Amino acid sequence: MPTNIETLSWLGGHFGTLRIIDQTLLPTEVTFIECRDAGAVWEAVKMLRVRGAPAIGIAAAYGLCLGLQSLPNDADIAECRRRVLEVAGYLASARPTAVNLFWALDRMKTKAEALYGTHGAAALKDALLAEAKAIHEEDRVICRAIGQSGQEFIADGSTWLTHCNAGGLATADYGTALAVFFAAAELGKTIHVYADETRPLLQGARLTTWELMQRNIDVTLICDSFAAWVMKQGKIDGVIVGADRIAANGDTANKIGTYGLAVSAHIHGIPFFVAAPTSTFDLTLHSGGEIPIEERSADEICESFGLRTAPEGVYVYNPAFDVTPAKFISGIITERGIISPVNQQNVETTLDSRH
Amino acid sequence: MPTNIETLSWLGGHFGTLRIIDQTLLPTEVTFIECRDAGAVWEAVKMLRVRGAPAIGIAAAYGLCLGLQSLPNDADIAECRRRVLEVAGYLASARPTAVNLFWALDRMKTKAEALYGTHGAAALKDALLAEAKAIHEEDRVICRAIGQSGQEFIADGSTWLTHCNAGGLATADYGTALAVFFAAAELGKTIHVYADETRPLLQGARLTTWELMQRNIDVTLICDSFAAWVMKQGKIDGVIVGADRIAANGDTANKIGTYGLAVSAHIHGIPFFVAAPTSTFDLTLHSGGEIPIEERSADEICESFGLRTAPEGVYVYNPAFDVTPAKFISGIITERGIISPVNQQNVETTLDSRH
Repeated sequence: MPTNIETLSWLGGHFGTLRIIDQTLLPTEVTFIECRDAGAVWEAVKMLRVRGAPAIGIAAAYGLCLGLQSLPNDADIAECRRRVLEVAGYLASARPTAVNLFWALDRMKTKAEALYGTHGAAALKDALLAEAKAIHEEDRVICRAIGQSGQEFIADGSTWLTHCNAGGLATADYGTALAVFFAAAELGKTIHVYADETRPLLQGARLTTWELMQRNIDVTLICDSFAAWVMKQGKIDGVIVGADRIAANGDTANKIGTYGLAVSAHIHGIPFFVAAPTSTFDLTLHSGGEIPIEERSADEICESFGLRTAPEGVYVYNPAFDVTPAKFISGIITERGIISPVNQQNVETTLDSRH
Repeated sequence: MPTNIETLSWLGGHFGTLRIIDQTLLPTEVTFIECRDAGAVWEAVKMLRVRGAPAIGIAAAYGLCLGLQSLPNDADIAECRRRVLEVAGYLASARPTAVNLFWALDRMKTKAEALYGTHGAAALKDALLAEAKAIHEEDRVICRAIGQSGQEFIADGSTWLTHCNAGGLATADYGTALAVFFAAAELGKTIHVYADETRPLLQGARLTTWELMQRNIDVTLICDSFAAWVMKQGKIDGVIVGADRIAANGDTANKIGTYGLAVSAHIHGIPFFVAAPTSTFDLTLHSGGEIPIEERSADEICESFGLRTAPEGVYVYNPAFDVTPAKFISGIITERGIISPVNQQNVETTLDSRH
């Protein structure tokens, strides 16, 4: 991320607003929107103006704060709790797959529960805003730790492939998969990255190439279907992608197309890594088959470029995510170190550890 | 193909024109262009207004006739030969991968060689136009034979996946991969087809869905990167694609993305078929590694929908084709029957056979 651009920023005090860069307009337009209520945050998450699992967690935490601004300062405990649960439930409905959304809202609700007996509504609002800012700030630290964990896999002169955008735009500012590349480059390693364009919404073409170019990392854009052929030609040393939800056994939901990449990497003997904060794990799910998969509008595929590109009335299947089984994942790079081989025991060991 | 639309048609006598449906405008516009000289055919092939290996072979044959129209009727043998070779060489330069282009031009040159001693320029032109019409007409017969050969694999109620457009628009009127679906449907089998949109130029989204819908065959459009996930979910019984050039050992060049599909089909245990006329084989090439791969403009990926979708100056890799090794191909469906298992001996046996 260029240092002058922030994915999300809170402007003002406890009656502030949430400023979000509108990622649907990048890279041709750098436009910010200011969210003044929870509805604006819900819309921004739903429409992917802010996207990426960690970033929508941060957005939701601030969104809860925005939703409480109209809560009277003399509201009683019951009213405070009712409002917190109502706004959190509403924000959680924006997108069903990325667990960081629910994780951040659960953390905010837990914080609120600890305060209801001792704090009035005004103090509750202040404390929840502080919690949202803590989530935001922790993400910066976590992403840098992910970068440090992962850069050990990046040899000087190596070439990597990534899918969608797991960069600064998907987080507070440094990314998960891209954090690994950023950390390697900061250590002076020369790397080359192939970026899948990532249909239908082209987050790879629009966002990942832009972030890498801003940091002077060599990047080559390809269409998603080229990846297997690029691997076949021996051009790729490894793959790193982000994650939207990871089950207890390591099965990983990420942007649609990730599973096919993992299959291709497997057959070509190429390491395939997932980079994600531990907040992406959902230990209530035993395996990836239990992860709900969001389906999105046919228009994203048929009209996403301002031009009709398929016949009217054609059936379309548009899942936003797929699930990559743990067996195809060489390692999961977290802020608490590497999970490898990827299995339930190693997931539990890493999640139980504290730095 | 709807019966009222022809991919290519020759209008008029030996001073006629070649009418081509402009496939770059489908499905939103049905527009025809009339080619009056070889240059117009070269441009139409280069710009993919006519595409698909068999169709560009037919177009090139007619293009040679157009290039000879200005040859004086009193031209001597040397001048006739010089002009034939010049125009054929020019047309062959339009696209490097599809062998049917060279096959058709070689057939036209061979025909001309047999006539130079006995025919004047006027008779030569008439005979070559008749040869082009024969190539065109034979393609109709061949495609129907491919459909008949292949439909035996299509069970009633089964679901298939295809990539790019190997339909009537890629041939005289009936297709290769799609011919198999058309033949199955004509026999009363109910089938469902998933069509990859086929980035960057969306031949699947624009052309394949359109052709299947015109024939009332159920079709679901997906982005290319969804295919592996659709297979993982058990939705696909088999894959059929076309081919642009097939080496002596069965390695097959086809639209970029085909190789990744074959990898995914292999890992999921799903049959993967290639459907192509025997004119697609190039026995001068021992294996797929010798097939030249056309690289096309970065703009196809960055600006193909009238909207800039990647940063200015980004590197782009845009190969038009990839090569699928014979080991991933369950069978090659030709007008002379099925080649399976796919190996050099079975290729030779089928190509040596005559019906």
